[in-house]
Amino acid sequence: MIDYESHFVGAIDSLHAEKRYRVFADLERIVGRFPTAIWRDGDRAREITVWCSNDYLGMGQHPTVLGAMTDAVSNMGSGAGGTRNISGTSHPLVELERELADLHGKEAALVFTSGFVSNEAAISTIARLLPDCLIISDELNHASMIEGVRRSGCKKQIFRHNDLAHLEEILKAADPERAKLIVFESVYSMDGDVAPIEAIADLADRYNAMTYIDEVHAVGMYGAHGGGITERDGVAHRIDVIEGTLAKAFGVLGGYITGSKSLIDCVRSYAPGFIFTTAIPPALAAAATASIRHLKESQAERDAQQRQAARAKDVFRAAGLPVMPSETHIVPMLVGDPDLCKKASDHLLERHGIYIQPINYPTVPRGTERLRITPTPFHNDALIDTLRDALVETWKTIGIPFTSERTSPAERTEKVTPLVVSQAGG
Amino acid sequence: MIDYESHFVGAIDSLHAEKRYRVFADLERIVGRFPTAIWRDGDRAREITVWCSNDYLGMGQHPTVLGAMTDAVSNMGSGAGGTRNISGTSHPLVELERELADLHGKEAALVFTSGFVSNEAAISTIARLLPDCLIISDELNHASMIEGVRRSGCKKQIFRHNDLAHLEEILKAADPERAKLIVFESVYSMDGDVAPIEAIADLADRYNAMTYIDEVHAVGMYGAHGGGITERDGVAHRIDVIEGTLAKAFGVLGGYITGSKSLIDCVRSYAPGFIFTTAIPPALAAAATASIRHLKESQAERDAQQRQAARAKDVFRAAGLPVMPSETHIVPMLVGDPDLCKKASDHLLERHGIYIQPINYPTVPRGTERLRITPTPFHNDALIDTLRDALVETWKTIGIPFTSERTSPAERTEKVTPLVVSQAGG
Repeated sequence: MIDYESHFVGAIDSLHAEKRYRVFADLERIVGRFPTAIWRDGDRAREITVWCSNDYLGMGQHPTVLGAMTDAVSNMGSGAGGTRNISGTSHPLVELERELADLHGKEAALVFTSGFVSNEAAISTIARLLPDCLIISDELNHASMIEGVRRSGCKKQIFRHNDLAHLEEILKAADPERAKLIVFESVYSMDGDVAPIEAIADLADRYNAMTYIDEVHAVGMYGAHGGGITERDGVAHRIDVIEGTLAKAFGVLGGYITGSKSLIDCVRSYAPGFIFTTAIPPALAAAATASIRHLKESQAERDAQQRQAARAKDVFRAAGLPVMPSETHIVPMLVGDPDLCKKASDHLLERHGIYIQPINYPTVPRGTERLRITPTPFHNDALIDTLRDALVETWKTIGIPFTSERTSPAERTEKVTPLVVSQAGG
Repeated sequence: MIDYESHFVGAIDSLHAEKRYRVFADLERIVGRFPTAIWRDGDRAREITVWCSNDYLGMGQHPTVLGAMTDAVSNMGSGAGGTRNISGTSHPLVELERELADLHGKEAALVFTSGFVSNEAAISTIARLLPDCLIISDELNHASMIEGVRRSGCKKQIFRHNDLAHLEEILKAADPERAKLIVFESVYSMDGDVAPIEAIADLADRYNAMTYIDEVHAVGMYGAHGGGITERDGVAHRIDVIEGTLAKAFGVLGGYITGSKSLIDCVRSYAPGFIFTTAIPPALAAAATASIRHLKESQAERDAQQRQAARAKDVFRAAGLPVMPSETHIVPMLVGDPDLCKKASDHLLERHGIYIQPINYPTVPRGTERLRITPTPFHNDALIDTLRDALVETWKTIGIPFTSERTSPAERTEKVTPLVVSQAGG
């Protein structure tokens, strides 16, 4: 006799034992008071400051976005009512896909219920439709891309993170007659570093490979119209598929891909994870379109985000806090131990009313446990100073090493990063 | 040199050649005028009647649901801002999960961005956590369940649709010490037939198997509180995992599972498709909770749906139209040929302004191509009569056999249903 329940209890016990058990904070965001939220803990409810949101530009409460969303709810209802094929294709969704294709200068776009599903469905479908496809994947790619690679059933090779020489080695060794798909990200969300996109596109040209880029941590935030790092670097036209999200800088929900008409039509027609799922509600599509259109025109949010992120890094570094190297709006703060990381997060919340989720293995390699801070345009200078003081107090109280007390975070990170496929982002 | 584009063009060409290329209708639903929508076709825009929506009770435009949604948008914004673990767990989502656990009389619930993801993530995770699990799956299970089975990497055996003797044969032959998971649906969406749930639970007890049921086409619509067929039949407590959707009868978006506290905690903690994805927006959670609460109290929508579905079947049968046997609110109308099925659908839309999507292979077995009609409380008697007249005209014009001109639809279906895993629902 199998005691089923005991297996589930045991699986949870082992997470506790490894200090990997996660508790979700029960939050209620407050429109007009970003980044403030109400945190409920048992019977208590108190106001806290969120410092780890992926609503990177605060668009999730922009009046234009909310107006578009409530209008669509009032006019078209709360849901789509079906899969895309069975009455679920709403007019706002058709418009959203046009807007996204335009954003990235591609022929067509396709929207999914999440970025996770978009990567999984698109990568697996594209690779399967090509003859004997070899997928060449950056070692730090997101869990959703890894799932897409797995599900394709195709052979894969992993190249060291952002390592062009290693990528070329793999391309060179592969049969020239074999289809090849290079999958990578523009901004890696846990470290905030950026891929050498143009150089990767050069290699793809040289070795006749297709390219697939995940821009979820860049769309809306980089490029003159929010088209991501590919727009900023003027290389969007050199990448075959640009994938993005509506759930981070655009402040809504859903993922998408853009590319050639035929490629998009193939994913639309062949991917089970797209075909057999209810379409996103018209109200979400309308909200996303409003957000994208706003960020196509307005540079103010992007400028403010970059300014506050740069200021946060400067202020934290000046206080001796171990800011890890980052080229982007992401500010990772090294702790280097899972237990201390969880304790720091709990202490910040309890003592200072500041919410920053601990990031532990397997989201990042062991030894690089961190707090991942995401300043937005709404995290003003006073909030940054308050956070600095809270971090310094926490570092002292918990006993986490300051910069002067450890080898440089960069070195440390490099030493411990193993050549494994990590799963960033959750 | 690989010409990548040519492979995508070729894949689309083959769909055209097989008459399986799908065109999505661009629809705009109109709150207060369900089931009317605006259909855009090129430059034309005209009003049509939707007869194939999965917004089965019209809750997608219920004032209470829309009010809850717009209030939450105004107060909490358009998006969640993060994964469940990274600041995305909103208070309305916590409340929704409590409501769902209560609906099915289970200890806990977990919400996903779609029913597809809930099946895929839950089935694969549950099976993987059990020792050497054998998954025993109904042959007509939905594509999302099949993906869950595949991704688990566990051995599977398929039992003939709703065939208890075959299920028992498989259970009996399996090693008693091996973990077993029976996965099946309550209402099968393309035929509208219902599983013998109690008898399956009896077999599960006898052979010490776990049970997982998909109730997506039943929740909200069956049982005194909308708990689905398991509530109607008084067997919810005998099923280990009840999976459902917020996107059909509840009129919003998202999927969910309910079960024991430990089991739900395991899926929450171990399933990549759950962990690494942005949470549903608080507004969708609030709308779903309002819808569930309304349907827990109100029987009116369920009664009206059953009445209109029964009337539609009677009226169509009386006109000699080949209604396939169905025990539920789903009214499948046999065409039996993919080309005629598409032509009938196009003709209904063009000539009569009636939208019913053709359902062809692989969604249903070849030879059972059909129109799948879903009467709701808002499809009144006059609309049913109008549809009957339009169907009769279409059947004559296109040359589709009436009941009297063919062997009975039931026989025909049985003969052609192969023992393969189909992919219903898209």
